[in-house]
Amino acid sequence: MSGKERRRVRVGLVGAGFVARLHAEAYHHVHGLDVELTCVAAARRERATKFAAEFGVGRIESDLGAVLSAPDVDVVDLCSPSYLHADMAIAAARAGKHVIVEKPLTGFFGPAATPRREMLRQALSSADAVIDACRGGKVRLCYAENWVYAPPVQKARRLLAAAGGPILRLVGEESHSGTHAPVNKRWDTGGGGSLLGKGCHPLGAALYLKADEGVRLRGRPIRPVSVSAETANLVATETFRAAGTPFLNTVEGADVEDWGAMLVGFDDGTVAQIAAADTVLGGIRNQLVAYGARAMVICNINPNNVVQAYAPDGAVFGEEYLVEKLETKAGWSSPQPDEDWTSGYPQEIQDFMEAVALGREPLSGGALARDVTAVIYGAYLSAAEGRRVDLRPLLREDVAQVLK
Amino acid sequence: MSGKERRRVRVGLVGAGFVARLHAEAYHHVHGLDVELTCVAAARRERATKFAAEFGVGRIESDLGAVLSAPDVDVVDLCSPSYLHADMAIAAARAGKHVIVEKPLTGFFGPAATPRREMLRQALSSADAVIDACRGGKVRLCYAENWVYAPPVQKARRLLAAAGGPILRLVGEESHSGTHAPVNKRWDTGGGGSLLGKGCHPLGAALYLKADEGVRLRGRPIRPVSVSAETANLVATETFRAAGTPFLNTVEGADVEDWGAMLVGFDDGTVAQIAAADTVLGGIRNQLVAYGARAMVICNINPNNVVQAYAPDGAVFGEEYLVEKLETKAGWSSPQPDEDWTSGYPQEIQDFMEAVALGREPLSGGALARDVTAVIYGAYLSAAEGRRVDLRPLLREDVAQVLK
Amino acid sequence: MSGKERRRVRVGLVGAGFVARLHAEAYHHVHGLDVELTCVAAARRERATKFAAEFGVGRIESDLGAVLSAPDVDVVDLCSPSYLHADMAIAAARAGKHVIVEKPLTGFFGPAATPRREMLRQALSSADAVIDACRGGKVRLCYAENWVYAPPVQKARRLLAAAGGPILRLVGEESHSGTHAPVNKRWDTGGGGSLLGKGCHPLGAALYLKADEGVRLRGRPIRPVSVSAETANLVATETFRAAGTPFLNTVEGADVEDWGAMLVGFDDGTVAQIAAADTVLGGIRNQLVAYGARAMVICNINPNNVVQAYAPDGAVFGEEYLVEKLETKAGWSSPQPDEDWTSGYPQEIQDFMEAVALGREPLSGGALARDVTAVIYGAYLSAAEGRRVDLRPLLREDVAQVLK
Amino acid sequence: MSGKERRRVRVGLVGAGFVARLHAEAYHHVHGLDVELTCVAAARRERATKFAAEFGVGRIESDLGAVLSAPDVDVVDLCSPSYLHADMAIAAARAGKHVIVEKPLTGFFGPAATPRREMLRQALSSADAVIDACRGGKVRLCYAENWVYAPPVQKARRLLAAAGGPILRLVGEESHSGTHAPVNKRWDTGGGGSLLGKGCHPLGAALYLKADEGVRLRGRPIRPVSVSAETANLVATETFRAAGTPFLNTVEGADVEDWGAMLVGFDDGTVAQIAAADTVLGGIRNQLVAYGARAMVICNINPNNVVQAYAPDGAVFGEEYLVEKLETKAGWSSPQPDEDWTSGYPQEIQDFMEAVALGREPLSGGALARDVTAVIYGAYLSAAEGRRVDLRPLLREDVAQVLK
Repeated sequence: MSGKERRRVRVGLVGAGFVARLHAEAYHHVHGLDVELTCVAAARRERATKFAAEFGVGRIESDLGAVLSAPDVDVVDLCSPSYLHADMAIAAARAGKHVIVEKPLTGFFGPAATPRREMLRQALSSADAVIDACRGGKVRLCYAENWVYAPPVQKARRLLAAAGGPILRLVGEESHSGTHAPVNKRWDTGGGGSLLGKGCHPLGAALYLKADEGVRLRGRPIRPVSVSAETANLVATETFRAAGTPFLNTVEGADVEDWGAMLVGFDDGTVAQIAAADTVLGGIRNQLVAYGARAMVICNINPNNVVQAYAPDGAVFGEEYLVEKLETKAGWSSPQPDEDWTSGYPQEIQDFMEAVALGREPLSGGALARDVTAVIYGAYLSAAEGRRVDLRPLLREDVAQVLK
Repeated sequence: MSGKERRRVRVGLVGAGFVARLHAEAYHHVHGLDVELTCVAAARRERATKFAAEFGVGRIESDLGAVLSAPDVDVVDLCSPSYLHADMAIAAARAGKHVIVEKPLTGFFGPAATPRREMLRQALSSADAVIDACRGGKVRLCYAENWVYAPPVQKARRLLAAAGGPILRLVGEESHSGTHAPVNKRWDTGGGGSLLGKGCHPLGAALYLKADEGVRLRGRPIRPVSVSAETANLVATETFRAAGTPFLNTVEGADVEDWGAMLVGFDDGTVAQIAAADTVLGGIRNQLVAYGARAMVICNINPNNVVQAYAPDGAVFGEEYLVEKLETKAGWSSPQPDEDWTSGYPQEIQDFMEAVALGREPLSGGALARDVTAVIYGAYLSAAEGRRVDLRPLLREDVAQVLK
Repeated sequence: MSGKERRRVRVGLVGAGFVARLHAEAYHHVHGLDVELTCVAAARRERATKFAAEFGVGRIESDLGAVLSAPDVDVVDLCSPSYLHADMAIAAARAGKHVIVEKPLTGFFGPAATPRREMLRQALSSADAVIDACRGGKVRLCYAENWVYAPPVQKARRLLAAAGGPILRLVGEESHSGTHAPVNKRWDTGGGGSLLGKGCHPLGAALYLKADEGVRLRGRPIRPVSVSAETANLVATETFRAAGTPFLNTVEGADVEDWGAMLVGFDDGTVAQIAAADTVLGGIRNQLVAYGARAMVICNINPNNVVQAYAPDGAVFGEEYLVEKLETKAGWSSPQPDEDWTSGYPQEIQDFMEAVALGREPLSGGALARDVTAVIYGAYLSAAEGRRVDLRPLLREDVAQVLK
Repeated sequence: MSGKERRRVRVGLVGAGFVARLHAEAYHHVHGLDVELTCVAAARRERATKFAAEFGVGRIESDLGAVLSAPDVDVVDLCSPSYLHADMAIAAARAGKHVIVEKPLTGFFGPAATPRREMLRQALSSADAVIDACRGGKVRLCYAENWVYAPPVQKARRLLAAAGGPILRLVGEESHSGTHAPVNKRWDTGGGGSLLGKGCHPLGAALYLKADEGVRLRGRPIRPVSVSAETANLVATETFRAAGTPFLNTVEGADVEDWGAMLVGFDDGTVAQIAAADTVLGGIRNQLVAYGARAMVICNINPNNVVQAYAPDGAVFGEEYLVEKLETKAGWSSPQPDEDWTSGYPQEIQDFMEAVALGREPLSGGALARDVTAVIYGAYLSAAEGRRVDLRPLLREDVAQVLK
């Protein structure tokens, strides 16, 4: 709308890869306030240059330090590898810049042989350091959990609120056929496997919906209290190896799980079943089902049937995008007419920009990120020790208060 | 994005009802240029006042004339009853304002007993007057056919273009349980029934896709050449009347059809089946299927399964919106997480604003509107006379050239 | 169940091809009475021999005449080419055998250039001859329209009856990618194209449901009164020919339509939209939707989502059957767990056997077959002359009475 | 088919309730051999009398003993409460009768406070007693797990076998809104809650598919080795109680879980996620998904979209059946055209009759029943102790050998 009294938010991007492109696209769709993409820094400068030209970014900076010392940057958007998130976020907070961090907020990054209890300790300590630095710097911490913003999840929230009563059970999953990027397949760079990289999404949405319900029903968020989990490395099984050329993406040297499932208990006696896998053919599956006491809501983020297409062979649709991680373009598929929108990316960036411009908390912030960290690393501990893990000692109550 | 070099478009709205609200919402989501809602005029001033307050419109004007003489209005958005479209659009064009007209562009408005041939003549003559006025005034004519912009339809277009080859057949329908508004149920105010009010949408999308295909395959739009149609007044049947309290919306004094189906032939030998009804329970149905020679694409604008919800009784979801024209909120439904987005409203308004700001044709303009008018009133003639109608003498070739 | 008082029906089959196999499979599933496959005759004796061995048929007969003179045959099942149906059925009736005829009952078989009016005349005259011969011979005429028996259609019938009130509109289609068999692609052997070969199914179901409704609401069947239709030969278009190697099945020398659509009016003022095409990729589509005044019912005979499967390439599923007329086994598909059952084949044969054993009319008999013949050849006339065809003079009232 | 050489199986039924009716219906659909329903015994004689009349049962017997001493009974079908299964089956086996037992085969029936380890011990011991008695009596033990026979599950099996390679993960669930029958809601009569009563179905199908895969890939069944589980009593939560009139079915005095989830590990390193709940609105959900290394298959036993119906209010469909456990008949629903068939009941009874007549093992027999018992009571132990349970010491290897 009219620019007369429009507020302006100036963004410095760190990273110029896949996620940075998703965000840049979303910044261009922000409405109601002016977003300026001031500068971008990336490990490979030529990539930053190309990115800047494509998305109208003002200038290239050499590194994070340069972005942080730029006076014309209000918020830093960290689209960097997971193992760099925490240090970068802390540096940004100390420089007085608002921070946007991609999921996962942080984690444990080290040898696979590290005891899971130690992993959990380090991951929580790292999350706390980020949160405390942001508080200390009086800057917003925006946790880029797009499922919170995905239109189907928000519609579910509104329907469940209208229906009243508790959500008795949530069942969620994000799965696909795995990544080609070794960085995400090792503990030292990825901080975990399927549970962390994919499970964070349905878990984040589930924690968000239960927190929202708590505020609605009793004035404070409902929190997770326990987790029982199992993990597996399914592509390491003998029968998989014997099954011939794999259709699933496998990576040499992978040391993380490619399947995980968590049974989460909440402080109101209700439950969630969260699963994540890198061993699913047929395109990404992003689904969440809420079984309420008074209503049921199914969210088909992906796939869904808004568009159904058929090609008699795999070459017919050429370069036209169908859906993430589909092995063949032949046969029937469910092409996404606008995957970004259904996934919540523009809505997420819109919220972050408004949070920064208006001085309020984003819907998805540090409190959610920390709970996700506690549950997932709690799940790793559970799977390793073959027992239920009590989450209560692992949560920060001061953080819960801001969770909306 | 940044407002530095941003272009501005100033909009004057005529009407403050349902459609005006849809548009106002969409104006607020325009990105990349500044839209100013300068003023609004409505038959009932208090409605305009409320509307202006809600949507941040600058001022209230007494009537169309006042809007047209305002120097700070670039484009007039006509959200007025159908029978006023043509006169208002012509006045706007003459005043040098760009014009946005809701569907239908225009039509025949008079006694039901008028011969269909005469209806056809008047409707085309009215459409021509609008188009010529806009040409004369050197203003853009934006025809608000949202299906052209609906993400599923645009995805279908891209998939079909990627696949190559012709669309052999299109099957489309818009239907619901009927309107409560008598204005839409009479020839003198509505200009027709289901075929005009609802059939214009799938027909518009079908004509758009075939025109696009023609440009792609042979450098000029494919045009419709014939139509065979039937219409009926299904709620006037004896068995319907005998079936007890009707669940369908019926209107005293209705004189238009509540069902129509058109079999359209194109100049390349291919076909479309278009249907529209006001006699469909269970929520609006907006569907289009393209049967290509090399691919098939189904567009489920509404319903689709992005969200599936269940309420054990009709009161559970309270005031929360589910889907247009659903008789009960009990049982399973397919609530739309963002009906505007899936229906193409924000994308349509974005295109219109860019067309005006950048001095180019909108995707949906006068050429499409005129073809729609010719096919639908040709269909009325066909149904009345029980014979196929040749559309070729009814089309304007000078208009086709701009159709993209 | 127990064989003590079981009735026995002895069947003679004529033909040993695809349809005969479907029937034979169904005979083996008949319960509650004993079916004996006494003998089979086929043009190619070796085929009959193989068939007999596979399905436990008692003996091979040389030809129809031998089957008809066999004293141990109660009913003759004619799984022969369409153009032989009428003569064979008449011979069977005269020999005092009950008759099962595959769809279409009969039709016009001759040069494509024959005026459609003459086609219509011959088709009706042929149907009448069959019906009158069966009456004369006091034998049952079983018309193998499986859609009447398909569980989804029967469920729709029960739901609509429970709801009460009229069906205002029926929309049905059978389509797929076309046949390889030249016999079905020529007027002289096939008797028509898509409309006859595929359209007979949704039309048959629609006529059945309306007849049933009439008996329910007013004590006598509702009958069709008019048809407006269009046909086309879509694979003969220039753009199709230019689109490279066709994925659709085309046949040299084809002279029938590969798409047809009928708008049917009923004597109660309601309507049906029936379509059929040989130009649809992605597997067969068998769908019927009933829009009632008090309920809506969608029948997804095929495809449906009972099973959803995905193969990353087309070789994965090997020889395992997925669904009729699917071009590729790659990607997502909707394999039918038991296509025969969902299509109504065993239920149809069960009814025919009971009709013969108990001396009652089958659900799908000569009355339905004749109405189907009248509407489809009426549609051919309509499409050729570009005008609505009045069906009333073409129907036999004496036949309607037995339609249930 | 012809009765000449038909084999006959004579059945004595125990029980005349819901399940007995399902079975009786299925007996009437058996083909290829003669089934005689010789006699029926039920606790309430008048119910047996009515049942016998309705389904053509030869005579009424006073009790199990009378059935067992009848010389004209080959097989006894136990449609009695769960807690009677074991004793009755043992008695039948000792009397030399083949046995059909409904699920669960047996279990623990006693006070809720019993330690789960003791429950597990008693359940396995009871299962062993049944199996050993059947072996001793040289009679077939038919375990009525209909999911093994459900067409979608069998189609999945064939597709997975055609694809080759392992099933990496199975995800299954049976859930609905709970039972009104107190007998199923207490440990002393039901032997457990959701996990036993509903979870046995998807678990049974999962164990069957993995066993089948093992035979296919390595010549012997794949067996479960571990289970981690959680259970909850969701309707006992404070927020549920506060949510007003419950839509879920609750029972006074219930002491079993109404939700349970099991994470099962197999001896080949693969996994299954099985869930069951009595807290699900919107109709029963019977779903199984197999994620193979080379293909993915989804089984929508219920709901599926074969028929989709809509009623504007809950009275419209009257007494016509829609789907199990649906709270309202208003809105959209997915009526089952033939729930028995899709659920596998007639196919199950057909297999049992053939197994008895031909002297072979049924597809679902004692081996499967015992594994199901071990996993489910292992899961109860896991949930109670908050730790993973090793199943290997709990399985009988001699039993596995017959599992097909």
